[in-house]
Amino acid sequence: MIKEISIVGTGNLAYHFVEMISRVDGLNINEIIGRQEKIPKAFRKFELNYSSKISNTLKSDLYLILVSDDYIKDICCNLKNLNGIVSHCSGSIDIEVLKECNNYGVIYPLQTFSMNSKLDYSKIPFLLEASDKEVKNQLNEFISKISKNISFENSESRFIYHITGVIINNFTNHLIVKSQQIIKSNNLNFEFLHPLIEETIKKTELISALEAQTGPAKRNDKITIEKHIDYLKKYDVEKLYRAISDSIINTNFVEDEL
Amino acid sequence: MIKEISIVGTGNLAYHFVEMISRVDGLNINEIIGRQEKIPKAFRKFELNYSSKISNTLKSDLYLILVSDDYIKDICCNLKNLNGIVSHCSGSIDIEVLKECNNYGVIYPLQTFSMNSKLDYSKIPFLLEASDKEVKNQLNEFISKISKNISFENSESRFIYHITGVIINNFTNHLIVKSQQIIKSNNLNFEFLHPLIEETIKKTELISALEAQTGPAKRNDKITIEKHIDYLKKYDVEKLYRAISDSIINTNFVEDEL
Repeated sequence: MIKEISIVGTGNLAYHFVEMISRVDGLNINEIIGRQEKIPKAFRKFELNYSSKISNTLKSDLYLILVSDDYIKDICCNLKNLNGIVSHCSGSIDIEVLKECNNYGVIYPLQTFSMNSKLDYSKIPFLLEASDKEVKNQLNEFISKISKNISFENSESRFIYHITGVIINNFTNHLIVKSQQIIKSNNLNFEFLHPLIEETIKKTELISALEAQTGPAKRNDKITIEKHIDYLKKYDVEKLYRAISDSIINTNFVEDEL
Repeated sequence: MIKEISIVGTGNLAYHFVEMISRVDGLNINEIIGRQEKIPKAFRKFELNYSSKISNTLKSDLYLILVSDDYIKDICCNLKNLNGIVSHCSGSIDIEVLKECNNYGVIYPLQTFSMNSKLDYSKIPFLLEASDKEVKNQLNEFISKISKNISFENSESRFIYHITGVIINNFTNHLIVKSQQIIKSNNLNFEFLHPLIEETIKKTELISALEAQTGPAKRNDKITIEKHIDYLKKYDVEKLYRAISDSIINTNFVEDEL
């Protein structure tokens, strides 16, 4: 059973894992390992043992690798002789990267994490993968203390969830960034757009997004599209507007033909 | 005071205006005018007078033009000798298109409307514009029976709200369409992405979207971007992915420089 946990990494995701684990009775964070000499400020409230290098004296049931994708392989090399489960938490890295470890897995929470955003962890979908059945049982038992939304998925499926997550989260957020910039530079009030954002999302939970599509590109209304693009030139949004409009036109055209 | 209303148009927006007005005591829809010979099915439950042409015998306090942008000018020509207020409800058409009418205005609800989506009308932002002070008072009094969220905005501001509304609603919806197509063609479960969509939106109401931005493009992580694009080729999403990623890179690069 997983009780003692080591955490490698001090970013947003590490912060939220510490937060999740701290709330569960019977789980203990042995230590946290980061690159800085001292533990970053945001983590001080947890009163954890902190180290700036991976020590061989670590004895945990689970080693969570919570660093950028590029560094996962390196970290793994330092953990390969341990008996505990070594797990990375990345959407786009194959489980095979950990294959030199004795016991390994993936714990991927399909969510966006910021330091200053509070989350209901029990609703986060956790996509898990394990090197064998015993690890599978242990990861399942561990994560079920945090969330009720668990699924075992292979590396390819996880990668697809990750990419669609990038499209939905990163890209939607960027559309809001651009809209906020346009509204702000005209001294208008972004709050008028909140009910529209909420309805946009609410609708796609009731009907398919394809059915919910409206607007000039859906109608292939070239006059309105060009009028909008002409206006948007000064905000450096024209390429973005054209690319998404083209994609809407293509998608709906193909769909209508079927 | 506006009591008797004529409605020109039988689309989604007309449907919702009929729904809104029907709920208010003291307001009456005199008639609805559409292109079809008979009233469309969705409207039958309201038991309205229906006409397939604009009759000169109409006597209403308010004529709501709820047709596609391209037809507003034509409809207006048929209403120019009336004493009631003639109002269009479009985000992108200037109020000047109605200037031959005696009394005119604009009633623009900043929201997305579908036949099968129920809305809390009292929260919809209504952006109003009026030909003179008397019309302004009348429109304000009329819409305040429907929504608590009213603002008088000129045609340029309304156009900017409309464009940002297109970016936020139409474009976000399209990102969800593409994600749903990718998930579906791999027999995966789109429900795993709902908590992420909800958190994406919730976050931007707490912190600015620029602060909330995460992901490979934010980090200018070219290796991950190319890996994603390579995978997305078969879904015809690569151009879209590249355009939005480029825009994120440009936006964050410029912002970091400031």
